[in-house]
Amino acid sequence: MRYEELTIEGRNPVMEAFRSGKPIDKLFVLDGCQDGPVRSIIREARKHDTILNFVTRERLDQMSETGKHQGVIAYAAAYEYAQVSDILENAKKKGEPPFVFLLDNIEDPHNLGAIIRTANLAGAHGVIIPKHRAVGLTATVAKASAGALNYTPVAKVANLGNTIEDLKKEGLWFVCADMGGEVMYRLNLSGPIGLVIGNEGNGVSRLIREKCDYIASIPMKGDIDSLNASVAAGVLAYEIVRQRMG
Amino acid sequence: MRYEELTIEGRNPVMEAFRSGKPIDKLFVLDGCQDGPVRSIIREARKHDTILNFVTRERLDQMSETGKHQGVIAYAAAYEYAQVSDILENAKKKGEPPFVFLLDNIEDPHNLGAIIRTANLAGAHGVIIPKHRAVGLTATVAKASAGALNYTPVAKVANLGNTIEDLKKEGLWFVCADMGGEVMYRLNLSGPIGLVIGNEGNGVSRLIREKCDYIASIPMKGDIDSLNASVAAGVLAYEIVRQRMG
Repeated sequence: MRYEELTIEGRNPVMEAFRSGKPIDKLFVLDGCQDGPVRSIIREARKHDTILNFVTRERLDQMSETGKHQGVIAYAAAYEYAQVSDILENAKKKGEPPFVFLLDNIEDPHNLGAIIRTANLAGAHGVIIPKHRAVGLTATVAKASAGALNYTPVAKVANLGNTIEDLKKEGLWFVCADMGGEVMYRLNLSGPIGLVIGNEGNGVSRLIREKCDYIASIPMKGDIDSLNASVAAGVLAYEIVRQRMG
Repeated sequence: MRYEELTIEGRNPVMEAFRSGKPIDKLFVLDGCQDGPVRSIIREARKHDTILNFVTRERLDQMSETGKHQGVIAYAAAYEYAQVSDILENAKKKGEPPFVFLLDNIEDPHNLGAIIRTANLAGAHGVIIPKHRAVGLTATVAKASAGALNYTPVAKVANLGNTIEDLKKEGLWFVCADMGGEVMYRLNLSGPIGLVIGNEGNGVSRLIREKCDYIASIPMKGDIDSLNASVAAGVLAYEIVRQRMG
């Protein structure tokens, strides 16, 4: 298990963090702020023995990583990374074939947050990210995930290729989105599946692409090259959702 | 027609702007930067009689709205908004039933850019945004659109509700994504269609929602409330693409 410091900013993310039972060490609230949502957050903080600090707007602005704290910033003790086995266990408990996102070096924290948000809503059992060269779980990621980081387990692995090999032994098939593949609507994407999302600029790396069972292409009817990484992840994830429902 | 100043930042967006024939008044390049992509941009600028300025990194950083200029910033004379009639004409020329995005007060320029990018790749004929209260076409939008702003016409209208009524007379049906609708896979979304995307926080406004023929729901299998606005737009747009291909 690995731990990291986590700053949670904004009303909804802070409230979600309390609701999900994540341990919050400290809460910083804009002094004099008395509206309903903030009062609810303060009530939650008292219930959970969180240390409460009333501070000035200048202080909050200084602490803020996202610039959008909305008068509340919480410090979580740590973000507890999951193990890959926890993700499989999660699928088993729900009685569903595993559905896992693997992120091959997503660099933008907004994209990472949006993809974890999509993973949660598409019913994926977890997200796997590489240890090196990619963005980790920062306050910006937590905010962009809109609370999903509290529910969807994220595992960090040393070598994404090895993890794919291990998961193949567990029966998973792997699909990535890339040029020159088969149109996604024509692939069979039901069953235990790993969805691989490539880097924003470079797409899926060659080594990882070669390990994928399917290369799915999203129809491109326009003039430019590619969708935003988190949009592409959403489009392909929901094709998987459609096929699983069918 | 309306005009606005437009700053284009970053290598791909600037190159795309030249290629698409958009008039670029001035180009600012990091002094001493000699690599291939920058030399290609300079060649394009000379071809198009653009005023060339070699400046320091400090100057570029100061001018930059996105903080990601990659050594090149271009000033376009103006962004020329399209008319709604241009969008219908665009569909007619391609011999396709109209497919239009309508954005009901998208506030985040990254979302607006990503949605225009998606509209381009999903083969939509144009994007309609309201004049008031929403974000306009800034350098951040242009960069997030990854060049799509040069190809996909964007019209700005005074009243989105009136525009929907007008387009209904042209045979378009309207669909928005919202809670409590019919699962999108079960709706008939082929034919002439307007896809309405709601505001990031509040969704589609009541008046616009009431004008829609279909309320589509994206299956939500997770613990949180909603997808990122640009991801939701992508997921619903590609369900329309799937049905149009079928």
